[in-house]
Amino acid sequence: MQLDDLLRTPIEPTTKGWPAQAGALPPRAVGQQGWNLLRQDLPLPVALLKASALSHNSRWMRRFLEQFDVRLCPHGKTTMAPQLFARQLADGAWGITVATVQQLTVCRRFGVPRVLLANQLIGRQAIRQVIAELEADPGFEFLCVVDSLAGVEALLSELREHPLGRPFEVLLEGGAAGGRTGVRSMADALAVARAVAAAPELALVGVEGFEDVMGGAIQEVESKVEHFLAFLVEIAYACAREHLFAPGPVILSAGGSKYFDQVTRAFRDAELGRPVEIVLRSGCYLTHDSKIYTEAFARLSARTPEIAQLGEGLQPALELWAAVQSTPEPGLAVLTMGKRDVSHDLGLPIPKQWYRPGLHAGPQDLGAGFEVSGLYDQHCCLRVPADDPLRVGDLVSFGISHPCTTFDKWRLLYVVDDHYTVTEAIRTFF
Amino acid sequence: MQLDDLLRTPIEPTTKGWPAQAGALPPRAVGQQGWNLLRQDLPLPVALLKASALSHNSRWMRRFLEQFDVRLCPHGKTTMAPQLFARQLADGAWGITVATVQQLTVCRRFGVPRVLLANQLIGRQAIRQVIAELEADPGFEFLCVVDSLAGVEALLSELREHPLGRPFEVLLEGGAAGGRTGVRSMADALAVARAVAAAPELALVGVEGFEDVMGGAIQEVESKVEHFLAFLVEIAYACAREHLFAPGPVILSAGGSKYFDQVTRAFRDAELGRPVEIVLRSGCYLTHDSKIYTEAFARLSARTPEIAQLGEGLQPALELWAAVQSTPEPGLAVLTMGKRDVSHDLGLPIPKQWYRPGLHAGPQDLGAGFEVSGLYDQHCCLRVPADDPLRVGDLVSFGISHPCTTFDKWRLLYVVDDHYTVTEAIRTFF
Repeated sequence: MQLDDLLRTPIEPTTKGWPAQAGALPPRAVGQQGWNLLRQDLPLPVALLKASALSHNSRWMRRFLEQFDVRLCPHGKTTMAPQLFARQLADGAWGITVATVQQLTVCRRFGVPRVLLANQLIGRQAIRQVIAELEADPGFEFLCVVDSLAGVEALLSELREHPLGRPFEVLLEGGAAGGRTGVRSMADALAVARAVAAAPELALVGVEGFEDVMGGAIQEVESKVEHFLAFLVEIAYACAREHLFAPGPVILSAGGSKYFDQVTRAFRDAELGRPVEIVLRSGCYLTHDSKIYTEAFARLSARTPEIAQLGEGLQPALELWAAVQSTPEPGLAVLTMGKRDVSHDLGLPIPKQWYRPGLHAGPQDLGAGFEVSGLYDQHCCLRVPADDPLRVGDLVSFGISHPCTTFDKWRLLYVVDDHYTVTEAIRTFF
Repeated sequence: MQLDDLLRTPIEPTTKGWPAQAGALPPRAVGQQGWNLLRQDLPLPVALLKASALSHNSRWMRRFLEQFDVRLCPHGKTTMAPQLFARQLADGAWGITVATVQQLTVCRRFGVPRVLLANQLIGRQAIRQVIAELEADPGFEFLCVVDSLAGVEALLSELREHPLGRPFEVLLEGGAAGGRTGVRSMADALAVARAVAAAPELALVGVEGFEDVMGGAIQEVESKVEHFLAFLVEIAYACAREHLFAPGPVILSAGGSKYFDQVTRAFRDAELGRPVEIVLRSGCYLTHDSKIYTEAFARLSARTPEIAQLGEGLQPALELWAAVQSTPEPGLAVLTMGKRDVSHDLGLPIPKQWYRPGLHAGPQDLGAGFEVSGLYDQHCCLRVPADDPLRVGDLVSFGISHPCTTFDKWRLLYVVDDHYTVTEAIRTFF
């Protein structure tokens, strides 16, 4: 990873979360400023990543991968933060997964050596850009997905006009009925796989899918995930039987951040008669959250009790802090944080702690009776109990549900130590 | 407005919506590239503003303001695009409204001469920054809101430590029970107003509120809005009676983009016995939308039939374009657009037109039977009718509901002419 340019490029005072009075400073200078949240050095709202939780989660996932002998190609779309990608690669990540060509551009700009695009590559612009990247750097490894003859033909049409010196690697995508992308039947799967195998410009290197698109109660979802993973394995068997895969290990890839234990189990049991590389794509493990992934992790721990050997589970690293702006009527506090600052698509933010400058030595737990009752674009309405201590100017922290849709609301987040002193500025590229 | 720096600063190829192969180019060079959406010069998804609709809406609002003799201080939080602020100011806007100090920083960076912060100024950092801006530029006019003694005291404490050569101007905020910020009773209003009037550091220049926080059926909401506006006028009467206002005209301000006709009527009828300046704050009129504001405008037209004299009403200027990525099962198309690209908080995107490169001369209406059934972070599931013509690679356009939460998903939007040729690149600062 080449982060030098990023670390040297000044953060403009117009950036949300930046203390404008500091003027422009490059990220690499931020850790030396001694800025502290509780000393009111940062404007609010602000998004923080706790260094201790990041390190803990990083170690936990490394132990998981070692114990189960699987690879991780974390989904970069979660954070879109090249500094966090670098950390994941240093931790042994196999590559970085992306969802779009813009996300690929960010990875390449900062030197990610292997990128998995977990989607079909659509449109002349997009295909040509990837071919150009592959031509420019023989060390760049790129994989994308195909789920249709139309997708295969679009790739071939561009590859025939702009021939590459090496095969263009694709994974065949399986999907679930009523779900998202991916072939729904073995007949469609084989038709696409045969078209890939027949084209010398392409190499079929594996099978992939995304399992977190099932609806229903949790047991029902787990059972659908099981069936879906079995379908992916069945596709891989069929392709192996027909010798449709290119030489080398066959990649089996799936896994968001909820069912990666099930993915691991299903793929480890696959016997294709040739080497298999299992590639998980979990993107949210690093920051975790305080709701949907916390719940999913509890379920995962129950489903796969052997992970207890890995020590204490994942911890929420991402916190939002806002100030109390108004306490206009009993039972209500209005805070300086809104839809533009925090996830609200899969659960509202969860109030955690509060802090009054000049009164407290550190954050205090809020206790029961506090609940976000509504988010406006720039305001948060917090229902508070009758004996609510909050006053205008107090600081309040929130856990979040779904890291992806909090990260994408910030161009700048801070890593802080356990005393809320800033150690690092993290830039995002959404 | 000083936009030179913005227009000269290159757009990096890592920016979403940018054709990476073009390398970095400054905004002022973009209009000369001849890029065209339908010729596939732009990566998808992409957010477009139709030049003709922007101009139409601009002219419509100018006629409204002239006919009813009111001022407009449009809410900048909608677009956070200094280039659009410049357009609004050139159209005669009284100033730009903001919700946060970061938004104020953006306005100041690009030279907006008058800024109304429609919130209390909270926190030492924030207050000090505004004082510094006021000291640095005697031509800078700034107003913010107070709704509590705590807010007044926080301002005074900083102003006494950092005295300003002129009074710091504030508007007293009225609120509605169960709503957001703002005093709920006349007693609270007068307590805050008296505290402001008693402090030589401060000047009470008016009364404001935000009316679009009422729940219920539309008639009920309109009636609550009416009552709320009457409460604001009553506060202004009481403050005038007690001579709590500073010299000069009294500002009465309210008005999002749904009820600005009611605001206009309520405030025009107010007789305070001294000059009144009515300041609307509508932010969404310029781009309008295809759902909530379209519905609100129909209602406004019925409520205030005299606006028919202003000619054809507001038009939706904001369109999202995405590509069909997969058609994996009958009745479903999956598109390259997700929660990260388009509003989903107050209604899902509305499919409008489609275009097949090589087949069509221009966009074709989709007709009935197309509906967004779900949005993932990076995917859109579109329910399609049985005779659906869509294939992988086709382009589809969407109208949006709630401009604010589409703008904040883009650092770059394009203005296009009626043939979808790019005439301008618009940068945002969220």
